Formats: sequence, structure tokens, C-alpha cells
Amino acid sequence: MRKQISSTQNKTVKQILQLQEKSRTRRKEGLFLIEGIREIQLAQKANYEFTAVYFCPDLIKEEKLLKFQFTEHLLTEITTEVYKKIAYRSGTEGILAIAKTKSHELSNLQFKTENPLILVAEAPEKPGNIGAILRTADAAKVDAVIIANPKTDLYNPNIIRSSVGCVFTNQITTGTTSEIIEFLQEKKVAIYSAILQDSEIYTKQDFTKASAIVVGTEAVGLSEEWRKNATQNIHIPMQGEIDSMNVSVAAGILIFEAKRQRKFN
Amino acid sequence: MRKQISSTQNKTVKQILQLQEKSRTRRKEGLFLIEGIREIQLAQKANYEFTAVYFCPDLIKEEKLLKFQFTEHLLTEITTEVYKKIAYRSGTEGILAIAKTKSHELSNLQFKTENPLILVAEAPEKPGNIGAILRTADAAKVDAVIIANPKTDLYNPNIIRSSVGCVFTNQITTGTTSEIIEFLQEKKVAIYSAILQDSEIYTKQDFTKASAIVVGTEAVGLSEEWRKNATQNIHIPMQGEIDSMNVSVAAGILIFEAKRQRKFN
Repeated sequence: MRKQISSTQNKTVKQILQLQEKSRTRRKEGLFLIEGIREIQLAQKANYEFTAVYFCPDLIKEEKLLKFQFTEHLLTEITTEVYKKIAYRSGTEGILAIAKTKSHELSNLQFKTENPLILVAEAPEKPGNIGAILRTADAAKVDAVIIANPKTDLYNPNIIRSSVGCVFTNQITTGTTSEIIEFLQEKKVAIYSAILQDSEIYTKQDFTKASAIVVGTEAVGLSEEWRKNATQNIHIPMQGEIDSMNVSVAAGILIFEAKRQRKFN
Repeated sequence: MRKQISSTQNKTVKQILQLQEKSRTRRKEGLFLIEGIREIQLAQKANYEFTAVYFCPDLIKEEKLLKFQFTEHLLTEITTEVYKKIAYRSGTEGILAIAKTKSHELSNLQFKTENPLILVAEAPEKPGNIGAILRTADAAKVDAVIIANPKTDLYNPNIIRSSVGCVFTNQITTGTTSEIIEFLQEKKVAIYSAILQDSEIYTKQDFTKASAIVVGTEAVGLSEEWRKNATQNIHIPMQGEIDSMNVSVAAGILIFEAKRQRKFN
């Protein structure tokens, strides 16, 4: 007999809401939520281990569910009412899974090429910007995304949502700014810090060798440490009235200049 | 004696809230709200005509207010309580103005150069994306931004906010897709429609001549009309798992490739 939940007062419902709302709970339990068919597919492809799958038969067709090939004991049927209570987004497809978080330690980072292209974002704050950056990183197929001094965990539902699942398709690691600089220097990866001070125009650089492009926040930019340890500080010329660009747009412009130089290989 | 409002029940307060919330009211009255010091400065610089200025002496210093050189009859002092009621954002600086909207008709569009660079966005929906696009357009100092088949008016407070005032610094016009295509063809501006079908890689194009770069929405892309009438359809290579990029990032990559080719002149 398949498991079922029909009451929004069920204790599992409360546990799910805790995982959704609290970074601390996700960290403590080593678990997080994934919502939506595409997101679950991408996590599966990235070998995330699922511990439970909740689905609403009124919203998702049996044939779609079967495609995931989940083992029966993972499955729990839920009512539309329960689904609405636990679903983070509107318009999702009646399925929600719990998976184990992965380690994102810098030491795990491996490159398949001698000239990796890496995108580093220091302390990004807005989940929408992190999502857009991860989508760009996926499109460019960069070798890694590194988040320096992260302000939030990667399994924040807002990040999963705004990245449309690209949080699973990229090789992502986190670390402190010092750790990352040390790591990049050791691996002989050139550091290009996006910063106005002491910087050259980005189009004059050679991004075909092993390169890390580093962007800061819109509010405070990059820390001194990145400026001082850069192989070269770089900037995008700002010719308008306001010296301001969305950070995910700036990252996209820099990464795709590198891609252009690399002939999209 | 300077005008004052100390009650949140004052009818002006209600009128302000209407202007904030309703596109229809803005259109009917030909008025809109601007909040924040930088935004008001930029609108002033762009010759917007102000009809009223509300400020909260507890939040904005007299010297900052004086810099605007508003004529006395425009000014109304409001209490913190009233300011909180009418302020759209948190953390703004105690000043809010009403200004007259401008016409954004295509026929007003004028170019200072023979080889203008134009950014066209068709039916953009999210104010955050429109804001990011306008910031990029400002940074690149494009000759014009054209919004085709707009879904919202430009004076939506979310757009003013997310563009950090770049809605005032760009030359912006709106029109239907057909009108815009006709306009561009008449002016002999090459149309580069960002679309996958029948398209070439964006880096192979010559954007140094008069060029319009056209982007659609993330949900449905560009309409057939743009594809069929393009001088050349173009695409950014997508090499990841997901064929998806934030629209403002894509616009930034395309516009700055044009800027690179134009040597940032």
C-alpha cells in the first residue's frame, strides 16, 4: 500500500515547510527540497540522492511520474490541499522531492581541461541574481562556479527556482575569499577581478588561458583582497549617466567575451 | 506658509497611492511618481516637469532638498507617518515627487549619429528584467531603447526602482512590432533578431553599421514578425544542459559585443 498524506496537519508537512524556510534545518539535516519536473530531472541527472517524493495524482500524470523511475518506497501520494500547503511556487507540476545536499568544498573541484574558465561571485545576495548567474554559467558551460563568502546556502528554494535548476547543472563550490585565491594561485589560474580601480578594459585581456572571472556585489563591489591578488583588474566601460550595471549582466558580458575568444570551445 | 500634510486620510495621499498602483490613473492624469534623491535628480536632468514634491523633514536634510532648486509652491511637508504610507520602497530618502509623463512615440525618435545602436525588447514582462535592460542600455550609451508591444507603462514604480532611474537616462520609445519594423527599415537600420531558428552566431555579425538588436521574452521568445523581417537572425551559443538565459543577460552580451566591435565609441 502506497503512503498517503491527506491532512495539512501531518507532521511530515511541517518538516517539509521547515526545510523550505530554514537554511539551518537544511544544513542540520543535510536535506533540501526540489520542486518541479525539470528541476527534479536535472538533480537526478546530477546524481542527487532522493529520500522522498511527494506527488499529487490530481496534478501530475502517472506516465510523467513513471519516467523518473523512483523506487516505490520513496513515493507518497498527497492531496491537492497538502500540495498547495507545501508547494513553494504556484504553477508547478504537482511533484516535490527531498534530496540529500552535496558537499561544495573547494577541494572537490576538478577540471577536465588545462585551461578552465571559472566564474567567481563574491557574496552575492539576491537569489534572482545568483539564479541568473548560474543560468549564464550553464549556457557558457564554464568549468566551475565558485561562490566566495556565501550569504545563503545553494539549496535556498529561491535559488533553485531562479536558476531554473542550473544549480544542479554547474560544478559549484564555495569557500572564503582567501581560500579561493589560494586555490586559484596554486592551480595557476589567472584572476581577473571586475573592479574599476587600477583596472584595464576587459576586451584587452587574454581569457584563453586558465582564467577566473571574479564579480562582486552591486552594493559594495569586490573586496580589497580580490583587487590586490588579481592577475589583472578589469572593467566594463560605463558610458552612461549612472555607473551601475546588474551584476548578473556584467558577469554574462565578461564570461561571453572569454567564450568569444575561446571560439565557443 | 508652506503646505503640510499630517493625516494619512488626506485626499492627496489617496491620489498619490492611485498614481502608484494604477497604470490607468497614470495614463489618464499624465502624471507619475518618482521616489528617491538620485531618481529625482535624473528626471530633473532629463527635463521632466514636476507638479508636486512631498518631503519629510525628519528624513531629508534641508541642504539636500535645496539642491533640487524646486520652486516653493511645489513643496509640501509631510510627516513620517504620511511618508511611510505613500513611499513605495523602504530605505528611500524622505522625498517623493509627481512629474508629468512624456510621450514615447516612435516618431519622436532622433539619432545623433548615422550608425545608431538600438536595443529593442519585445513585450518584456518582469519589471526587474526591464530595469536591468535599461541599466545596460545606459552603461552602453545606446542611441535608443525601443519597447515593442509593451505590457506595462514605463512609469510603473517597479520599473523606475529596478532601473535605478535609467528609465530617465535613456531615449526610450514604444510602439507595436509592425510600427517598429517599418520605422527601422525606413531608417535603414539593420535588424538583428535574437532567435534560434535560421540564425547565425552573434559574434560573426558586423554591428558597426546602424544596428538594432532585438530580444524577446524568456517565455515565448520573439514573434515571427521579427524573425521574418530580420536582416539577420542571431543567437548566443548555448552549450549547457538547459537552453535558457536571463533575457537581460542575453541583451547585455549582444549589446556589448556591438560595443566591442565599435571600440566603445
